[in-house]
Amino acid sequence: MKRARPGKVTVLAGGVGAARLLRGLAAVVPARDLTVVVNTGDDDVFHGLHVSPDIDTILYTLAGLSDPGRGWGLRGDTFHAIDALARYGRETWFRLGDRDLATHLYRTTERAAGRRLSTITEAQTRALGVGVRILPMSDDPVRTVIETARGRLSFQEYLVRERARPSVRAIRYHGVRKARPAPGVLPAIRNARVLIVAPSNPFVSIAPILGVPGVRDALRRAAAPVIAVSPLIGGRPVKGPADRMMRSLGMRPDPVHLAGLYSDLLDGLVLDDTDARFLPALEARRIRAATTNTLMKTPARSTAVAQEVLHLAHAVATAPAS
Amino acid sequence: MKRARPGKVTVLAGGVGAARLLRGLAAVVPARDLTVVVNTGDDDVFHGLHVSPDIDTILYTLAGLSDPGRGWGLRGDTFHAIDALARYGRETWFRLGDRDLATHLYRTTERAAGRRLSTITEAQTRALGVGVRILPMSDDPVRTVIETARGRLSFQEYLVRERARPSVRAIRYHGVRKARPAPGVLPAIRNARVLIVAPSNPFVSIAPILGVPGVRDALRRAAAPVIAVSPLIGGRPVKGPADRMMRSLGMRPDPVHLAGLYSDLLDGLVLDDTDARFLPALEARRIRAATTNTLMKTPARSTAVAQEVLHLAHAVATAPAS
Repeated sequence: MKRARPGKVTVLAGGVGAARLLRGLAAVVPARDLTVVVNTGDDDVFHGLHVSPDIDTILYTLAGLSDPGRGWGLRGDTFHAIDALARYGRETWFRLGDRDLATHLYRTTERAAGRRLSTITEAQTRALGVGVRILPMSDDPVRTVIETARGRLSFQEYLVRERARPSVRAIRYHGVRKARPAPGVLPAIRNARVLIVAPSNPFVSIAPILGVPGVRDALRRAAAPVIAVSPLIGGRPVKGPADRMMRSLGMRPDPVHLAGLYSDLLDGLVLDDTDARFLPALEARRIRAATTNTLMKTPARSTAVAQEVLHLAHAVATAPAS
Repeated sequence: MKRARPGKVTVLAGGVGAARLLRGLAAVVPARDLTVVVNTGDDDVFHGLHVSPDIDTILYTLAGLSDPGRGWGLRGDTFHAIDALARYGRETWFRLGDRDLATHLYRTTERAAGRRLSTITEAQTRALGVGVRILPMSDDPVRTVIETARGRLSFQEYLVRERARPSVRAIRYHGVRKARPAPGVLPAIRNARVLIVAPSNPFVSIAPILGVPGVRDALRRAAAPVIAVSPLIGGRPVKGPADRMMRSLGMRPDPVHLAGLYSDLLDGLVLDDTDARFLPALEARRIRAATTNTLMKTPARSTAVAQEVLHLAHAVATAPAS
């Protein structure tokens, strides 16, 4: 079967799940046609260094440098600096690798020199030989804060230090209302032929992006179909606390409730084969859905899921208006 | 022979040569009696991090963590972060090791939090289990600048990047006139029973310390004998550009000219056996001198030189006034 070139593809992305889908998309879409708008709500400062975990995960994955086991950091990295910081009494639960430190040192000094996160990310993307355009959702600081039974935690404190155990009462995105979309974000949404919501946590990866003024509206108005990939497989995410967060917030962790979070903008949903029973409920909500094995353990599976997404987008775009 | 406890010993120190003498002094003087006043004129900022090369060399040496071959950095350290910075196009001629980075990250963030270099150094000394008191000469910034035939260079640019090849026209210590001695520096000089000028470069290690207002005067007025160890062996330093600097500035690199730089404060000089021919000229200038093998390649040699220094100090202190 000859596939039509999909044209420009823009992806809203969090960390690992998004990176795995992007690995597949990069295999089937020319790099120049692929733009990623990345969550920066879980950016944080460790030891004075500006860390952008989702940008880094995507950057490293697309550069072929990511650690396949951990889902974060660089393959084969060492942890000598962070272990030495422990000798000085520093908290070192956020594990920064030695090679990884270079990324944060570069970002931090460039920011101190007045450059924008988007400019810095573009330079880092180029330096690592990545052709895909990686855009932070905003150059302005947005910080996801988790209100838990144990008090207010930064996202990294909640996820890494507390291992997502405290029950979540509310999630706030400090600064999001004043944040402006980074240069290129709104055009990348408006001009896309396919818009994709990556299989990322809806509350802490996708919601901050959608919260940046203008982004959600641009997605609603976009001519292109908006296709999400569910991060849930049988009621659980591959990684992270999405299911616990959904439950904490009174929501069942299933594709129908996930789709409900995007109901104003979603045209199609790719979900895992194990969740096929939700297809009728989705179609009843006028969401075109397709199932596949969404566990992207290998590059080949990433490519297959990417193709399924593009196929569904094509189906939505060419379907007669209902 | 039973040796009298020397009492409080205060050392003016640069980097490697000083560290090797201190290793010996720490073996014969109780740590609580030993204070080091360290040059900070070659401190610099790399990748946003405050690096204090002389403090670090002394700290690491006294902690038993220094690299014996290189004379800087930590034994067995790796260089993954700095090599990764090169991928982002950064200049990486100043080699910061991965474990070493922790020292600079800690210092930089503590300074950003408003703490003084002396307070930070005290915390780092304690953290690495060093009992000797390490005092930066000042908490205020002093920067040694080398005016060369190839223009104005920071000291690290001159020494590390240009490998001390450009001929030196002048050396300036920016900020030194406004610098205040760090807390404890003047009392450590006033209350010492023995004052030692380490075998360090007189222009870029010792001169900045002596340039801090109050320090040189305190040494001149001190009751204790001031003993220097010559960094020259047969007209050359063990490490660094002291001889080239002396020549560039029109001075022969020998112990007599070295002693001339400290003539207003010096009581005694320990020099290498190979320079024994300078003994008469020194004695003629009323400088008590002693020779030994000053090449401190082993801890045992460091101890022997330290003992020679203390012995000479004792001889000076107990000599009848001439």
